[in-house]
Amino acid sequence: MNALKTSNPGALEELAERFGAQLSTAEAVRRNHATVEGFHPDLPPDAVLMARSTDEVSDAVRICARHGLPIIPYGAGSSVEGHVLAPQGGLTIDLSEMNAILAINAPDLDARVQAGVTRKQLNTALRDQGLFFPVDPGADATIGGMVSTRASGTTTVRYGGMRANVMGLTVVLPSGEVITTGGRARKSSAGYDLTGLFTGAEGTLGVITEIQVRLHGIPEEVASAVCTFETLEGAVNTVIDAVQYGLPMARMEVLDALQMKAVNAYSHTDYPEQPTLFLEFHGTPAGVKEQAEIFGELASGHGGGDFQWSTAQEDRDRLWDARHKAYFAALALAPGKVALTTDVCVPVSRLAECILETRADIDASGLTGPILGHVGDGNFHAILLVDPSDADESARVKAAADRLIERALSVGGTCTGEHGVGLGKKKHLLAEQGAAVAVMAAVKRAMDPQNLMNPGKIF
Amino acid sequence: MNALKTSNPGALEELAERFGAQLSTAEAVRRNHATVEGFHPDLPPDAVLMARSTDEVSDAVRICARHGLPIIPYGAGSSVEGHVLAPQGGLTIDLSEMNAILAINAPDLDARVQAGVTRKQLNTALRDQGLFFPVDPGADATIGGMVSTRASGTTTVRYGGMRANVMGLTVVLPSGEVITTGGRARKSSAGYDLTGLFTGAEGTLGVITEIQVRLHGIPEEVASAVCTFETLEGAVNTVIDAVQYGLPMARMEVLDALQMKAVNAYSHTDYPEQPTLFLEFHGTPAGVKEQAEIFGELASGHGGGDFQWSTAQEDRDRLWDARHKAYFAALALAPGKVALTTDVCVPVSRLAECILETRADIDASGLTGPILGHVGDGNFHAILLVDPSDADESARVKAAADRLIERALSVGGTCTGEHGVGLGKKKHLLAEQGAAVAVMAAVKRAMDPQNLMNPGKIF
Ligand SMILES: Cc1cc2nc3c(=O)[nH]c(=O)nc-3n(C[C@H](O)[C@H](O)[C@H](O)COP(=O)(O)OP(=O)(O)OC[C@H]3O[C@@H](n4cnc5c(N)ncnc54)[C@H](O)[C@@H]3O)c2cc1C
Ligand SMILES: Cc1cc2nc3c(=O)[nH]c(=O)nc-3n(C[C@H](O)[C@H](O)[C@H](O)COP(=O)(O)OP(=O)(O)OC[C@H]3O[C@@H](n4cnc5c(N)ncnc54)[C@H](O)[C@@H]3O)c2cc1C
Repeated sequence: MNALKTSNPGALEELAERFGAQLSTAEAVRRNHATVEGFHPDLPPDAVLMARSTDEVSDAVRICARHGLPIIPYGAGSSVEGHVLAPQGGLTIDLSEMNAILAINAPDLDARVQAGVTRKQLNTALRDQGLFFPVDPGADATIGGMVSTRASGTTTVRYGGMRANVMGLTVVLPSGEVITTGGRARKSSAGYDLTGLFTGAEGTLGVITEIQVRLHGIPEEVASAVCTFETLEGAVNTVIDAVQYGLPMARMEVLDALQMKAVNAYSHTDYPEQPTLFLEFHGTPAGVKEQAEIFGELASGHGGGDFQWSTAQEDRDRLWDARHKAYFAALALAPGKVALTTDVCVPVSRLAECILETRADIDASGLTGPILGHVGDGNFHAILLVDPSDADESARVKAAADRLIERALSVGGTCTGEHGVGLGKKKHLLAEQGAAVAVMAAVKRAMDPQNLMNPGKIF
Repeated sequence: MNALKTSNPGALEELAERFGAQLSTAEAVRRNHATVEGFHPDLPPDAVLMARSTDEVSDAVRICARHGLPIIPYGAGSSVEGHVLAPQGGLTIDLSEMNAILAINAPDLDARVQAGVTRKQLNTALRDQGLFFPVDPGADATIGGMVSTRASGTTTVRYGGMRANVMGLTVVLPSGEVITTGGRARKSSAGYDLTGLFTGAEGTLGVITEIQVRLHGIPEEVASAVCTFETLEGAVNTVIDAVQYGLPMARMEVLDALQMKAVNAYSHTDYPEQPTLFLEFHGTPAGVKEQAEIFGELASGHGGGDFQWSTAQEDRDRLWDARHKAYFAALALAPGKVALTTDVCVPVSRLAECILETRADIDASGLTGPILGHVGDGNFHAILLVDPSDADESARVKAAADRLIERALSVGGTCTGEHGVGLGKKKHLLAEQGAAVAVMAAVKRAMDPQNLMNPGKIF
């Protein structure tokens, strides 16, 4: 790695003067902010700023704008498409110390948080009030990062993803100017939906410093269940039935046989190593019972064996802990390898064929790649394990991932259900969205004419 | 009114040549497209085109762009903020004949429609398949118009408004180029949310010609109810309780005593002329019963008398027919007057004070103005009746509307929950969204550098 990149010494000097010890150019700190999950090159920024307020972010952005230094917003760094890498160097603005929960409005089911608050931190703060923030990407991501990738997760099938659960933002624009978008009303037709535009913009339009989020009441009753199937097809077809039946499932996750094997080894569980659904039901006690019974019937029609549901907190915790560690469990199947994680999302009616063809393709390619996903939304991941120093395996993994995306696009799906574009999916975005990408680029140029904000991502 | 405006004879000639009888410059047609609900001046376009395909829209837009002729997209013309008026003249592109339902994908709960399909038409086509499209603005608006105002309505409390129920679009850009946004996946993180950006853009960024919408299964059981209260406060506090309880109400509408009087007179009903909630519950039979019973208890705690619920279709139809005609019932209170319809939306915890202060303010101002609204979302309308030739009354109505908006903004609400900005709310948008409006304007300039699309609206 280079010593301190001096392509822009003026900017770094001015930043150092303004921010003192909050700014670091130490190699370890820079490297640490460029260590990401997945199959990406190592591209550290020139410096890292630990920001503590909207004003500080604004000052830093103004200095960068004056000197033309790129800016990379940074939350928890858990994104998987190389989102926080610095291909053109620049200043990483780390928001993780901006982690104050500014307001919880229990009667209105909303809260205002700084961007560095993590979802677990928020949920811990909410629990006593009987409330929760539903979006759950597994990783303990920041709310700012989750807004920026338009994250979703296990509960999105019931409660929506970030798009549905963000009401307003405070944003530092690429000029350093600060705006607020949205508000506290549950709906509004007041002009363009800027909140929606920043949601999923991957830090390319501004730095989000505060977020107004929607909350939900913790349901009276919560039940979880594990349902094992003879075939992957049976598991997926049960999901399709449940969606079409209109069952208000709170969580509905598939894990294939290989993923279950990985989970057992990593989390010391003893689930049957067969295609499996992890489920959760929310409602009144009577409602949950009704849902679970209907689900059990649907499952038994597709070879779902021995459907048991439980309202015990410890059963639930064990289940979702194992689910949330599934990615690391997959990695542990082949120590030393990294993962290329795919993220397609398809219309539910095409889910079975898409998953089964993908399973067959991975096997035929001689790759190790468990499949799991938020199948209630039609979203699933193949975690393709790869030794980056093995050129042949790397090529096979990339080709299998490309084929999976083609398969998804051919049935009207998307190349990314929730992870975003980053560095890794730029060509796929073009294949999927076509001429619309030029419109996105026009919006980007209008809002960030210097191309300062997270350059090289999305476009 | 002027004879044929000849500010741009070249454009009109070229349009006439391309479109023949589909283009009209007849005064009656132009006037008809500039006759809108509300308290607005009479500003007809130069010509009206009845478009029949995306290609035709694209050709028309190209001709207008070449000649600098403004374009006003037109659906059903039911918007209330002067959205379809032509302050700078121009071509109205009427999409009402583009009313084909292109695809219904029952298993995936989605459909693709041309922009001129109306919500009633769509729901009639869906009924046999056990599906419905939930967004219900009362008027039989077009889906394209509803996207463009970010409409919502009686069922939004449960199923979301247009923002939540639009998955993708086909749009003719101000250059005439055609793009598609979004797709058929139920979620996606593929680049900027252009679908969301066009949703609520009021025709200022392009002409929408096709929409991919989300559908929902018709619930197994539907029950409706009317609940009468001693006080408006009791009715509103019951709504607040139900929201905070997390009851999954499908519809929850308030009508004040004056609105109930208007309804009885107009719809020949005999409801008690007291503050009233119109309600609907969706679910399984057991679920609906449970919801209705819980609601009844909450209501009785706030002076809600004699709560009866019914699953009979005819009770339901009578109820919602009366609700949907409430605006015209209000107008009939004072024949010859027009209505300035306000549209604030506030955090639910501030709803009671906001409605009660508004009721007192209208009465103290000596105005006639029933109050009703989608209170489950915190959204309500005062229908302020006014004789436009009476300068004093006009001034009092405008002042009362301004005070209502100030009241809503002071508690974190919005000046428009669902109607949009149009001509009527431009200054209020600035008061509410502040510096963010300049960002909206930058997006507008980037996407429509000639300011061709519905000029004079929003900004
Ligand atoms: C094991 C594992 C499981 C995962 N499962 C899921 C899942 O189920 N669903 C899902 O959606 N994702 C998942 N992810 C991906 C990841 O957790 C999400 O993308 C998450 O939203 C990233 O949040 P972060 O705080 O880590 O953001 P970062 O990785 O720090 O940043 C992500 C992007 O957002 C930008 N950004 C960050 N903060 C801000 C800000 N304040 N203002 C502007 N831009 C900002 C960054 O520049 C970058 O482009 C998973 C990741 C891992 C490692
Ligand atoms: C009695 C009554 C009750 C109402 N109740 C509600 C309610 O409960 N909720 C609610 O949200 N609204 C309500 N409205 C307002 C109105 O119905 C909505 O604004 C509706 O969305 C307008 O649809 P439309 O097809 O009539 O659009 P139009 O009035 O024709 O157009 C509305 C705007 O959208 C643009 N537009 C129209 N079609 C397109 C297109 N294809 N592409 C691009 N731009 C386009 C127009 O230029 C204009 O700016 C009510 C109106 C009335 C008269």
